[in-house]
Amino acid sequence: MRNSFGNVFTITTFGESHGKGLGVVIDGCPAGVAIDEGFIGKELQRRKPGQSKITTQRKEEDAFEILSGVFEGKSTGTPIAIVIYNTDQKSKDYSHIADKFRPSHADFTYHEKFGVRDYRGGGRSSARETAARVAAGAIAKLLLGQYGVSIHAYVSQAGHVQLEKPYQDLDFSQTETNIVRCPDADAAEQMIALIDETRKNRDTIGGVVSCVAQGVPTGLGEPVFDRLHAALGHAMLSINAVKGFEYGSGFEGVRMKGSEHNDAFYRDGDTIKTRTNHSGGIQGGISNGEDIYFRVAFKPVATIMQDQESVDTQGDSAIVSGKGRHDPCVVPRAVPIVEAMCALVLADYLLLNRSSKI
Amino acid sequence: MRNSFGNVFTITTFGESHGKGLGVVIDGCPAGVAIDEGFIGKELQRRKPGQSKITTQRKEEDAFEILSGVFEGKSTGTPIAIVIYNTDQKSKDYSHIADKFRPSHADFTYHEKFGVRDYRGGGRSSARETAARVAAGAIAKLLLGQYGVSIHAYVSQAGHVQLEKPYQDLDFSQTETNIVRCPDADAAEQMIALIDETRKNRDTIGGVVSCVAQGVPTGLGEPVFDRLHAALGHAMLSINAVKGFEYGSGFEGVRMKGSEHNDAFYRDGDTIKTRTNHSGGIQGGISNGEDIYFRVAFKPVATIMQDQESVDTQGDSAIVSGKGRHDPCVVPRAVPIVEAMCALVLADYLLLNRSSKI
Amino acid sequence: MRNSFGNVFTITTFGESHGKGLGVVIDGCPAGVAIDEGFIGKELQRRKPGQSKITTQRKEEDAFEILSGVFEGKSTGTPIAIVIYNTDQKSKDYSHIADKFRPSHADFTYHEKFGVRDYRGGGRSSARETAARVAAGAIAKLLLGQYGVSIHAYVSQAGHVQLEKPYQDLDFSQTETNIVRCPDADAAEQMIALIDETRKNRDTIGGVVSCVAQGVPTGLGEPVFDRLHAALGHAMLSINAVKGFEYGSGFEGVRMKGSEHNDAFYRDGDTIKTRTNHSGGIQGGISNGEDIYFRVAFKPVATIMQDQESVDTQGDSAIVSGKGRHDPCVVPRAVPIVEAMCALVLADYLLLNRSSKI
Amino acid sequence: MRNSFGNVFTITTFGESHGKGLGVVIDGCPAGVAIDEGFIGKELQRRKPGQSKITTQRKEEDAFEILSGVFEGKSTGTPIAIVIYNTDQKSKDYSHIADKFRPSHADFTYHEKFGVRDYRGGGRSSARETAARVAAGAIAKLLLGQYGVSIHAYVSQAGHVQLEKPYQDLDFSQTETNIVRCPDADAAEQMIALIDETRKNRDTIGGVVSCVAQGVPTGLGEPVFDRLHAALGHAMLSINAVKGFEYGSGFEGVRMKGSEHNDAFYRDGDTIKTRTNHSGGIQGGISNGEDIYFRVAFKPVATIMQDQESVDTQGDSAIVSGKGRHDPCVVPRAVPIVEAMCALVLADYLLLNRSSKI
Repeated sequence: MRNSFGNVFTITTFGESHGKGLGVVIDGCPAGVAIDEGFIGKELQRRKPGQSKITTQRKEEDAFEILSGVFEGKSTGTPIAIVIYNTDQKSKDYSHIADKFRPSHADFTYHEKFGVRDYRGGGRSSARETAARVAAGAIAKLLLGQYGVSIHAYVSQAGHVQLEKPYQDLDFSQTETNIVRCPDADAAEQMIALIDETRKNRDTIGGVVSCVAQGVPTGLGEPVFDRLHAALGHAMLSINAVKGFEYGSGFEGVRMKGSEHNDAFYRDGDTIKTRTNHSGGIQGGISNGEDIYFRVAFKPVATIMQDQESVDTQGDSAIVSGKGRHDPCVVPRAVPIVEAMCALVLADYLLLNRSSKI
Repeated sequence: MRNSFGNVFTITTFGESHGKGLGVVIDGCPAGVAIDEGFIGKELQRRKPGQSKITTQRKEEDAFEILSGVFEGKSTGTPIAIVIYNTDQKSKDYSHIADKFRPSHADFTYHEKFGVRDYRGGGRSSARETAARVAAGAIAKLLLGQYGVSIHAYVSQAGHVQLEKPYQDLDFSQTETNIVRCPDADAAEQMIALIDETRKNRDTIGGVVSCVAQGVPTGLGEPVFDRLHAALGHAMLSINAVKGFEYGSGFEGVRMKGSEHNDAFYRDGDTIKTRTNHSGGIQGGISNGEDIYFRVAFKPVATIMQDQESVDTQGDSAIVSGKGRHDPCVVPRAVPIVEAMCALVLADYLLLNRSSKI
Repeated sequence: MRNSFGNVFTITTFGESHGKGLGVVIDGCPAGVAIDEGFIGKELQRRKPGQSKITTQRKEEDAFEILSGVFEGKSTGTPIAIVIYNTDQKSKDYSHIADKFRPSHADFTYHEKFGVRDYRGGGRSSARETAARVAAGAIAKLLLGQYGVSIHAYVSQAGHVQLEKPYQDLDFSQTETNIVRCPDADAAEQMIALIDETRKNRDTIGGVVSCVAQGVPTGLGEPVFDRLHAALGHAMLSINAVKGFEYGSGFEGVRMKGSEHNDAFYRDGDTIKTRTNHSGGIQGGISNGEDIYFRVAFKPVATIMQDQESVDTQGDSAIVSGKGRHDPCVVPRAVPIVEAMCALVLADYLLLNRSSKI
Repeated sequence: MRNSFGNVFTITTFGESHGKGLGVVIDGCPAGVAIDEGFIGKELQRRKPGQSKITTQRKEEDAFEILSGVFEGKSTGTPIAIVIYNTDQKSKDYSHIADKFRPSHADFTYHEKFGVRDYRGGGRSSARETAARVAAGAIAKLLLGQYGVSIHAYVSQAGHVQLEKPYQDLDFSQTETNIVRCPDADAAEQMIALIDETRKNRDTIGGVVSCVAQGVPTGLGEPVFDRLHAALGHAMLSINAVKGFEYGSGFEGVRMKGSEHNDAFYRDGDTIKTRTNHSGGIQGGISNGEDIYFRVAFKPVATIMQDQESVDTQGDSAIVSGKGRHDPCVVPRAVPIVEAMCALVLADYLLLNRSSKI
């Protein structure tokens, strides 16, 4: 619990933004998965800061080291520990907020809960913790790849700029061709312009990441509490700054009638398919073989380059000033994190499903 | 996992719609909670079928029996088992779908996952399972009541009829005064009219349940994967027919700027409060003492009184005809279920938080 | 945790000795196991009180009811709930100890832990709780039977009367032919005489149950904390009155040299076997295909028909007098409980092992 | 599960004998525990190889690094990750057993379970993994120390040399004064002589570690499956080479009568005590405030400096020759491991007990 996630394929993450390092222990990865370290590195590159003008300018190399669980290029069935050492931490940057609570950050709540907190860079509440998830997610992707499962996340909204096209009309190979990670060039351009303008105004803005999982076999998902979409929702809501999750028809589906919303079954060769997919690939909490798709809402980043009203740890009024190097919009770098968490859930449920039948 | 929920205050539910009964085992309820059986009964009454013209006309009494864990009116710290025996099951009603897959139901996916399924009334995938959750949630509410926590859910949308007022402008004492469970009389009337019309058209419609938790102490929620809102989202997404979850500013917050969205801290007597509450009472995954609020999207009920295209268990084309007694809209009866799941999460996290500090 | 056991094949038990009933929820049993209710009944008969002159004379029928999870004679993959209703509870029998702490019982510790306790018949600490485990164990045995695994427990010691023969020299078909459940007729006779004499002296005595599991496939057991024998030990030590557990060479093996203790491998047709089996079928925590065997020590029953020094709930001196109907020696009725817990562990680990390799 | 242990205060270990390093993530340590790094180092020194003539001559420094969870000398409530880098691994030492199964090692069973194995130094099955537990146990001891709990393990048997004195007659301050870690000088001398002689004969021998926990508050332990002694047994049986566990009167108690075995309660000032302590400080699975004591049996080390019959990975006959630097008897170095696992269980149950009452 707490810093662990998963049932059979489990991860436990550790580490603070400005401590010695952070990392993850993956327990329950089956033996025999080919571990491509280059792929892990590439996934981390997609998340790392300093990628472009619309992300934070912090430079962190996010070099990783596998300490255990891999032998001669393959997983051994024992825990895979991966450490990412911190290098570019400027702890001094944070002395100005050591005794103040930044609005809409975790400062106040950590203080209330634990009595102490590592204030440097947000400590454990820093989004830097997600680097560990991305590394673990890369392992999960390597496992899933052997079963033909692929995962595609992309930015579908930044502020008010929304990509209206359904995912079926997108070319996922275009996602990585622009800095905002939106597979539609026109929308990408507008998003980038908006984020850049927001950054210049020393402000921040929210966004939405959409995600599609294809090739997922039928049968993944557990009644009752661990429905596949409940696990996906839990996973997504555990990412920093996430405020909402919907899958399939989502909040819009509320307005539909049952006769419109129901997905009719039909036979296509040896496969049973559905004519529409308002179910988002999940029925009764279990995958039905159709594409799984969902949307994740991210709030505007809380750190802004402006003075804000707040209180200090004594409860006295204080002004929090914006300092440091932060993202004007979190979604471009959130794309690989959403994919990683999706991969972790699917890998876990793939294994869990192995005990469904005698 | 699977049919269990919670970390310290845990529940395990069991039972099918048309078996002998269903129930729940609550493990981890502290000793000393006064168990008011009348209250449990009232909560079950709010969920039970046959309440009004806009719910299913099935009659189920949902009488419950506590088998263990309560002695002389108080919880003893040992598991509390509650059984609700099935009485009004008409298994014959379901012979027509024994070998067909109802569209957007769990028939096909259960068949794929388990090879067998109890087709009577949806078996384990029936929403009847939530009766067990409501009983358990009543125990959680009794526990939370001793700490001053109260939970108020209500219908805020049915189809396109949406209650625009923020929760602060509502009088929760009015929720139970109408059959749709919307605390605003005007909106309630429109919702009831829409649902009734939909029912007459042999169709169904979706809706949204909103929920507010008040009096929640600071410090509830665990970094990183078990953020309070991630647990709430998991809980809500585990309810039948739920397609989306958002808390605080939710999907709308995406369009805001950080400077608008951030909740400024200020001191009010001995308490630190926030001037706005876009955070929905949760910052960094931990409660900050403000009201917690969230919204839950329910799809239109899949069972409609119309003929639908489908396939049978052999994969051949088949027509599924609507029969039986079903809800035209699930949200009025979902209100106590949302409250129950919210109570279960808060009770669990209240106990979990006891080990945060030395 | 707490009242649950297992990782994938899990059980949660509930119920007190003198409440309305007790039972178990089995979550994670794969779909497709043929559920033989007659077999469950027979297993419960082996545990129930009143079997013979050397067990308690209480009459409890231990009739059980399956509430869920079985459809048309097979498990469906959903939770199997089994309830055993209490019938012969004479709560009056216990009023004399309502405010006294019986020596070496759980009265004092429950009082300290929970503040309240159901004093009737020991409440939750009563060995009656193990009826639920025997019912669940029967399901696990049915699952294991499909994989060729069989489990044989027997009484190998009562007081100072010890069965010296190794298990290889015993005929397990003889275990149920005598009331003490020792497969050796001579030893059985001596044990019965000793227990009967002890009973007449209004005293009690301890004993040892040995257990052998045959046909267990290789590969069951998880490094590091969940070694197969650690799970077996946990399971056995969770049975009332158990004071010790050893497997393979056990405490005696301490005196051996490595050169004597090591089990040499050799090839027998297509199978790799060991010439000796001091390892007890488990190496590095994982089954190696040889017979698994272990021994479980039970203390003398704490309830004796004599006056004993104690204190009451106020801390004042008090005399506890022996009353009621109790076992002079627990081991004959413990045999099916040991088998049940062994079956639960093996079923769980069989499923867990399905995710070891890709 | 698997490589994790504990419910609230949990640890997850990782790492192989000859990989880059091994370590542990401690999740659930409350905030505010003073973390004395010097103490952790001392505990690791007690376990490390090369201490004396009766332990392995391998030199491993076991230097550790805390990567997270500690800020300004105190635990922060976030995961504490500790890494111990491997330095003295001579992987070449193991090429001779890369394709052979060492008798009574985990080689064969890992091969069966996972299909692959890291054969260098036993990989994950190496006792080197316990270094991570000792580091975590040191943190648990620091937590327990704040509640007045102390833990004392010592060697009570090596081969046939047995320390007959009850623990009450021993001076625990003497345990560390000799290389075998037996607090009785005479017995220690005999044990050392026996182990040294065994080593010269290129053989190994087993032993027993006894452990006493003092100052444990009442109320720790959970009915039913997680009785305190069941958790202790699980913990001890998860240590390499352990074959048995008994607490209180243990296997010897079997021969006693109830009238002898029962521990009479009496009042001593404000405290309720027992006149004897055959219960080993645990009644009904819950601590009663008396000393907790138990014994742990270790088999003779499987690696001997002799030729042994075996098979190779092809199933063909093979001779395994003794090479490398190994312990002739494991118990002297097992003392801190037993203490560490005991501390981990007690810390976990101390926190778990915080939710017993309202």
